Amino acid sequence: MSGRLAVVGLGPGDARWLTPEAEVALAEAEALYGYAGYLDRVPPRAGQSRHPSDNREEQARARAALAAAATGAKVALVTAGDPGVFAMAAAVCEAIEHGPAAWRSLDVAMIPGVTAMLAVAARVGAPLGHDFCALSLSDNLKPWETIERRLDAAAGAGFVLALYNPISRARPWQLGKAFELLRRHLPGATPVVFGRAVGRTDERVMITTLLEADAVQADMATLIIVGSAATRLVARPDLPPLVYTPRAGEASA
Amino acid sequence: MSGRLAVVGLGPGDARWLTPEAEVALAEAEALYGYAGYLDRVPPRAGQSRHPSDNREEQARARAALAAAATGAKVALVTAGDPGVFAMAAAVCEAIEHGPAAWRSLDVAMIPGVTAMLAVAARVGAPLGHDFCALSLSDNLKPWETIERRLDAAAGAGFVLALYNPISRARPWQLGKAFELLRRHLPGATPVVFGRAVGRTDERVMITTLLEADAVQADMATLIIVGSAATRLVARPDLPPLVYTPRAGEASA
Repeated sequence: MSGRLAVVGLGPGDARWLTPEAEVALAEAEALYGYAGYLDRVPPRAGQSRHPSDNREEQARARAALAAAATGAKVALVTAGDPGVFAMAAAVCEAIEHGPAAWRSLDVAMIPGVTAMLAVAARVGAPLGHDFCALSLSDNLKPWETIERRLDAAAGAGFVLALYNPISRARPWQLGKAFELLRRHLPGATPVVFGRAVGRTDERVMITTLLEADAVQADMATLIIVGSAATRLVARPDLPPLVYTPRAGEASA
Repeated sequence: MSGRLAVVGLGPGDARWLTPEAEVALAEAEALYGYAGYLDRVPPRAGQSRHPSDNREEQARARAALAAAATGAKVALVTAGDPGVFAMAAAVCEAIEHGPAAWRSLDVAMIPGVTAMLAVAARVGAPLGHDFCALSLSDNLKPWETIERRLDAAAGAGFVLALYNPISRARPWQLGKAFELLRRHLPGATPVVFGRAVGRTDERVMITTLLEADAVQADMATLIIVGSAATRLVARPDLPPLVYTPRAGEASA
């Protein structure tokens, strides 16, 4: 088969985080697929067809992109951040596993990108400076009990936590419940970072504590970092504090 | 103060993963600091001074870069991957916390990059497609017991694991011990990925199982991903299998 599917990570919403490899994959594509909100970030090019889709249709979107590649086209499926972190790369693998045998012969390339937690962390210092976990709070595809068990295990063992998909209209209570649960493991003074739409014009980054953290301060575009007991603040005159987790990372051990 | 320190993530060893933001920070720098092996990846520019240092001197390197910025210079401190993940951003924050008060007024910017686990994951599919932890196996700065406790907690709760700093001449047995411990939690068939020097000419990526995983196959340039019980292989004719963790990620629950 001559078709090719590139699953392209655009990085968070700032073109200065788009890698040259991703840029080339976008330029070479004959057809672009992706959630409409992400596809809007890719400037139109002559001769390229564009196939925006709804946010929720991950499997359908993956199958449509694979079917287009199977006709011999060069296809790019775009995602925000990194395609391998709570994004389309896993959906594409799943579609290949359960799809027509011919899809297993396609040239499929995942193009990595800067994932949201790295961009949020960079804005405030180095909160992910030591061992950390990335966890989706969405219970659309896994039971809430599994999420609670993972929050307990990660916080109890001293990992910093990056929380993806913290809240949505259909999942309004999960983040508050997560903060409540984490307060059982961690001091109230533990630094918490809310990073909303980082790299976009409506970026908003807030540093607070676990005691003060309130789920109403988050929305669907927010990535949350909850420190470990080792995470520290460095106060700075006329500048926001630095938040970092020392490489030794041992206050909680 | 007019000085500026940019802590720049070069990404893994392929210039196609260097972001435009990092490129600008390197171009604007009057002085470049970094481990010699990483600094070698930055092409020389006229008018820039270069200050390579040894691999182990993280605090000294951070302080030297900060001291240079405090003289009013534009300084770039380069790291591989992302500066916030087991790299120099935390060392810089630590140096600021314990350094002269004037350093707290410096303009310090962390420039995010593609960290190794994202590049390795992209090479094989989407092994980090669901909840995962990043863990350093180095017991230089934390007790080995803490690492064991974190391996237990993460694997026991169904997280995929990305293992940084798996092995070195001074730490020869830790990775083997980690595999042994993980075999108590996970089936022998659990996919394990060894990603060595990804993006460099001497890149070597190997997919194996937890049962077969052998520490001698890793070196200092290797990043290891250990799947969860939910991680799957998709066989492909004439191509390496895809490794992915479904977004539902629930086989281990």
